[in-house]
Amino acid sequence: MPPQRFLILADGDFDPMISKTANAVIRYLPERVVGVLDRATAGSTVHDVLGFGGTIPVVGTIAEGLALEPDAVLIGIAPMGGRLPETWRAWLLEALDAGCDIWSGLHTFLSDDPELSTRARERGREIRDVRRPPSPLVVSSGKARLVEPLVVLTVGTDCNVGKMTCQLQIVRGLHERGFRTRFAATGQTGIFIEGAGIAVDAVVADFVGGAAEQLVLEAAAEADIVLVEGQGSLNHPGYSGVTLGLLHGSCPDAMILCHQAGRKYISEYREADWLEIPPLAEYVRMYEAAAALVHPSEVIAIYLNTVSLDDEEARLACREATRTTGLPCTDPVRFPGDTALVDAVIARMADRLPDARRA
Amino acid sequence: MPPQRFLILADGDFDPMISKTANAVIRYLPERVVGVLDRATAGSTVHDVLGFGGTIPVVGTIAEGLALEPDAVLIGIAPMGGRLPETWRAWLLEALDAGCDIWSGLHTFLSDDPELSTRARERGREIRDVRRPPSPLVVSSGKARLVEPLVVLTVGTDCNVGKMTCQLQIVRGLHERGFRTRFAATGQTGIFIEGAGIAVDAVVADFVGGAAEQLVLEAAAEADIVLVEGQGSLNHPGYSGVTLGLLHGSCPDAMILCHQAGRKYISEYREADWLEIPPLAEYVRMYEAAAALVHPSEVIAIYLNTVSLDDEEARLACREATRTTGLPCTDPVRFPGDTALVDAVIARMADRLPDARRA
Repeated sequence: MPPQRFLILADGDFDPMISKTANAVIRYLPERVVGVLDRATAGSTVHDVLGFGGTIPVVGTIAEGLALEPDAVLIGIAPMGGRLPETWRAWLLEALDAGCDIWSGLHTFLSDDPELSTRARERGREIRDVRRPPSPLVVSSGKARLVEPLVVLTVGTDCNVGKMTCQLQIVRGLHERGFRTRFAATGQTGIFIEGAGIAVDAVVADFVGGAAEQLVLEAAAEADIVLVEGQGSLNHPGYSGVTLGLLHGSCPDAMILCHQAGRKYISEYREADWLEIPPLAEYVRMYEAAAALVHPSEVIAIYLNTVSLDDEEARLACREATRTTGLPCTDPVRFPGDTALVDAVIARMADRLPDARRA
Repeated sequence: MPPQRFLILADGDFDPMISKTANAVIRYLPERVVGVLDRATAGSTVHDVLGFGGTIPVVGTIAEGLALEPDAVLIGIAPMGGRLPETWRAWLLEALDAGCDIWSGLHTFLSDDPELSTRARERGREIRDVRRPPSPLVVSSGKARLVEPLVVLTVGTDCNVGKMTCQLQIVRGLHERGFRTRFAATGQTGIFIEGAGIAVDAVVADFVGGAAEQLVLEAAAEADIVLVEGQGSLNHPGYSGVTLGLLHGSCPDAMILCHQAGRKYISEYREADWLEIPPLAEYVRMYEAAAALVHPSEVIAIYLNTVSLDDEEARLACREATRTTGLPCTDPVRFPGDTALVDAVIARMADRLPDARRA
C-alpha cells in the first residue's frame, strides 16, 4: 500500500510558531501533504504562511480539502481547550464519509468517541490515535545495550528545542551517504512523520524505559544506525522522569545535545525566573553521568536551534558552543550544507571496535 | 467513620519473604487486622508465620474470615499469573454480600470487573483500586519547593530495599516526639496503610512529578514534616524515570538513602551479573546532584535493611556505612531503640532558618 497522503487540519492556528505538528509534517513529508485546512489563511499557499512548503494550497472548507483527494485527515494542531470543536467533528465525519482515515495525536483519543468510531467502522476507515500506547508494554530489560547498530539519542536543555528535528535532519544526511538508518519516534509528530513509534510520555510511568527499549530493538533489526527521538530534559521539573526513562531504556552509544540559542530559562517555569538553563558543558557532563548509571554514552555533537538569530549571529553562536564544549555544533535547518552532525555520527560508527558493545 | 478493619487475603503465599503487602499492613496496622485468609497456614496465628503480629488468627475459609467481622477484604498478595483466580472471585463476592468493601492494589482494577462492580453497587459497598490514578493529574509546577514544612524523601540503591518501611518507622518516632508529621504514600502498600496516596508508577509518565507535587502540597497543609515514600532507584534500568520524576516533583529538602545490606546487584538484572550496586557514598553524590538540577537537597542519613544479617553483623554494617558516608545509619526495624534517623530529621528541622525555603 502506498504511503497515505494527508489533508492537514490546522484551522485557526496555522502559523510558523504555533502549528508545530502541521509544520513539521509539511517540512519532512511535503510530497504527502495535499493541502491544509485553515479558514484564516485560506487562499494562500503553504509557502506564503510558513516560508517553506511550496505551492501546497490552504483551503477554507472541508469540501475543497476533500477535492484534493487525501487518504487521511491529519490533525496538525491542538484545539483550544483540548476538546474537539463541533466544527471539527462535522469535518471529520465528512472526511470519513469520503473514505479518509484520521490521524490524531491528541491526548483525548478520537477512537474512543462513539460517533466518530461508529462512523469509521461503517465506512471501513481507521482512526489512528498515535498517542495510544501499544499493549502490552514491559519493564525495560536492558537489552537495548546489546544491539549491534549504533544507537544515538538526542537530549536537550529543555522541552521544545529541536530534538526531533535534529534526528530527522541527520536521518536525511545519513540516507544520502548510504547508511541504513532508522528513526525511532517517541512523540506524536515524529510518529506522524515516521508512520510508527510510541509516544513515551503517554505510557504508564513504569513502562517508559520498556517502550524505549522496544523501539530500539525493532529499529535495530532493520538498520545499522538507530536515531532515537529524545524528550524533555533531565532538569525539567515536569518531564525529567520521561527523559531519564528514555535514556536508560534506549541505552544509546552516543548523544547529541540540542539547545535553542538564546533561551535562558526552562521555558514553562520562567514566570518565576526559576530554573536558569546551565551552560552547555554542564549539560554534557550531566547527561553522560546519568547515562553511565546504566550504560556508558558520550555526547558527540551539539545541535543549535538558531531560529531567533540571523545568519551571522547563528554562526557565532555555533562557534561559541564548540569553544565551550569542544564538540562540533551546527544548525542543520539553517545551514543545510554543514554536515557536522552527520559527520559526528559517522565518525562514531568508525570508532567502534567490532563487538565493542558486547563488552 | 472509624477506620476500617481488614480481613487480609494472602492465600497460598502467606510468608515472611513473599506476602510483603500483607506483612507491612500487619506490622503497621495490627489493631486493624482481624485475620488473614490462607489455606496453607490456617489454624496458626500470624506470629507463628511471620514472627510478629501476635494472636491475629489465620483462617482457611471465607466464612471463618467474615465471622471475624471485617469492614473490608484487603488483597495482600499478587495472585499467580496476575489474573484473579476463580476461588478469589467467589470469596470477594461473598465478602461483598456480607457487607465488606474491597481494597486492592492489583494492576488489573477490580472495579472494572463487571461481576464484582455490579455486586458492589447492589450491596452499596466500595471497591478501592488504590493503584488507579486520580484524575485529572497535572504536570509538576515546581510548587512543592515552596511549602513551609520540611519535606523528606527516601531514595534507594535499588527497588524493594525498605523506602516505605523507613518512612513508616520515622513517622512513628516523630509522632512519639510530638511532631505534626504526614506520610505521603506513593505505592500500593503505603496507600493501604495511610488510607490515601497515589501509586506514582501507575500514572501516565508525564504526570509522575505532578502526582508527587500534589501529594506534598496536600500533606503540607496538615503537617510540619512531610515524609515522602520513595520508589525505585536512579540507576534502575526499568524504574529510574519514576525515581527522578518523584524526586523533582516532590522537591525534598532532605533525603534518606535506603539500602539492603549485602545486596550486590540491581536485583532484577543480576542474572547477567549486570549492574553492580556502587558504593553508598556514590549514591549520596548521585542523588544530591540529581536533586540539585531542580531543587537542592542533601542526604542526611542511611537506612540499612539488615534482614539477612545477625545482630552483630548488622551493627558492624551500620558502622561501616557511617564510616564510608559520614552519615548516621541504623536499621530501625531491628534496633527500635536507635533513634538515629528520627534524630537526623529533627536536626534538619532545627537547622532551617525561618523562610529559608522561600529563598
